[in-house]
Amino acid sequence: MSPEFELIRRHFVRPMRGGVLGPGDDCALVRPSPGCELAITCDMLVSGTHFLPDTDPRRLGWKTLAVNLSDLAAMGATPRWVTLALSLPEVDDAWLGAFADGFFDCAYIYGVDLIGGDTTRGPLTLCVTAFGEAATGKALRRSGAQDGDDIWVSGQPGRAALGLADALGSFRLKDAHRDDCISALEKPLPRVALGRALQDVASAAIDVSDGLLADLGHIAAGSGLHAVVEDAALPWAALRATCDDEATVRRALLAGGDDYELLFCASLSTHDALRQLSESLSLPLTRIGAMRAGRAGDVSLIDAQGCELPVAHRGYDHFS
Amino acid sequence: MSPEFELIRRHFVRPMRGGVLGPGDDCALVRPSPGCELAITCDMLVSGTHFLPDTDPRRLGWKTLAVNLSDLAAMGATPRWVTLALSLPEVDDAWLGAFADGFFDCAYIYGVDLIGGDTTRGPLTLCVTAFGEAATGKALRRSGAQDGDDIWVSGQPGRAALGLADALGSFRLKDAHRDDCISALEKPLPRVALGRALQDVASAAIDVSDGLLADLGHIAAGSGLHAVVEDAALPWAALRATCDDEATVRRALLAGGDDYELLFCASLSTHDALRQLSESLSLPLTRIGAMRAGRAGDVSLIDAQGCELPVAHRGYDHFS
Repeated sequence: MSPEFELIRRHFVRPMRGGVLGPGDDCALVRPSPGCELAITCDMLVSGTHFLPDTDPRRLGWKTLAVNLSDLAAMGATPRWVTLALSLPEVDDAWLGAFADGFFDCAYIYGVDLIGGDTTRGPLTLCVTAFGEAATGKALRRSGAQDGDDIWVSGQPGRAALGLADALGSFRLKDAHRDDCISALEKPLPRVALGRALQDVASAAIDVSDGLLADLGHIAAGSGLHAVVEDAALPWAALRATCDDEATVRRALLAGGDDYELLFCASLSTHDALRQLSESLSLPLTRIGAMRAGRAGDVSLIDAQGCELPVAHRGYDHFS
Repeated sequence: MSPEFELIRRHFVRPMRGGVLGPGDDCALVRPSPGCELAITCDMLVSGTHFLPDTDPRRLGWKTLAVNLSDLAAMGATPRWVTLALSLPEVDDAWLGAFADGFFDCAYIYGVDLIGGDTTRGPLTLCVTAFGEAATGKALRRSGAQDGDDIWVSGQPGRAALGLADALGSFRLKDAHRDDCISALEKPLPRVALGRALQDVASAAIDVSDGLLADLGHIAAGSGLHAVVEDAALPWAALRATCDDEATVRRALLAGGDDYELLFCASLSTHDALRQLSESLSLPLTRIGAMRAGRAGDVSLIDAQGCELPVAHRGYDHFS
């Protein structure tokens, strides 16, 4: 067996669920469930662009899969299968073992099989394609929001951005909150259970990967509406407890990516259902504004008097 | 619209077939056909490892997709959808436009929709995941060959390796055959129609990407058999017409990858069906040996007297 195949086998071939042909043939084979659509998402992570070269490989393995499962969650899909392509500058057995451990930790928790992929020599680059299932016609799209729908966000967006600022040394978090923020950055928890439940409740959804306002802009554009965010309704308290610098807190919450919380729209009639859902998932859900008729894709931040507030940063653009 | 999204939209968003949600949401959505398994394959191509940085982008676009469709062909699956992730050192509009043209030329000919992907900044790297459908239980695996099956190969393996040797300047092909070999290298034709037809004929299949003997070894290993290749039966004539150097010809045919011809096993009773298939597809199919009981994964090359011939090179290993 050649070194390449041995390498793949040792770290990346693990037992599969039934009915699946995993790595080792020209293709993997899977059997989609009858009555389901397949949701497919793909992310490429490049060393130096998406993560630092010395990132802990176990945490990198987790995050590489988690960010893709988050995209499935944002469609309300149930994760099923994943492929992983990686380009490596050299065969570093310890690094690969730790990376695989983190990847499979996440795969196991979310019930996903690694069915195939590719390994090659080159600059450290990771590409995951993930597959989930949603009942036909039930997947949550960005385009479904209606005029008058409320805008909601899960969890505590902004913590990952604070964790990154701390990790890069540009800022020092309070010790008591540091671990939470670093964990939000390095081990995000894709909101899969929330996404599935939202299939019957929400009109549109997206995950916060590039920044809350930037990602909300995608819903607004897709739905042909104007998103109005009420500054006072945003979940500031937990971030302010973490950090004394108000400008940093504002930027983290409004424009920080990498939290992988869900941002979604739902009609007023779903408030009770959402409160129950929040309780059963032990996950805060915060109403932060509403969708209005207006110029498609516009996102405004308003104060208690309804006056628009200036926003310096809205999110991350890979090519800006 | 940010430069990144505008870039993706301009070059990579094209009309889709019905029932498909393409790029622009968290996930793509597709509806697999009832009664089908989904075949999934993934390849990562890195500049400097898999192609030269100055490769013509239009031809690179074609090949990036074609090599994945070849994996689907080797399973007998019908190509349906594809995702493309690309990391780019800079936004070069002309390069991207030409790459997209080549990619969509291939997608159009083989009836594939580009449903999603990712674009990011980094060293030039391409990752395609391709999806095809095969009737449940009918996909061709490497593991299905039986003791006594004949071994067949399509087309003229070895031409791409000769084309590469010429392109690298290590060797000069005769002018009359040069274009054919360069075309085999740069614009391979995945054997999709052959693969589909072989679902009912062949017992096992693989595409020749790493080298004929190396890839045959995968069938032999998967099927627990010994593959015996008859030197005199191999399709030498066309290669010898191209090139006077016998050692180069031998290495190209036995160990040259990148032709994406199909290598498959089939019982004696299928000879007539295969001859008809060859005629209807206007594609040579050559019987080159037989599968025998023996040590799993062994591949031997024998002369007319049944004596084993030495083989210097069997194929390409990405980490050797």
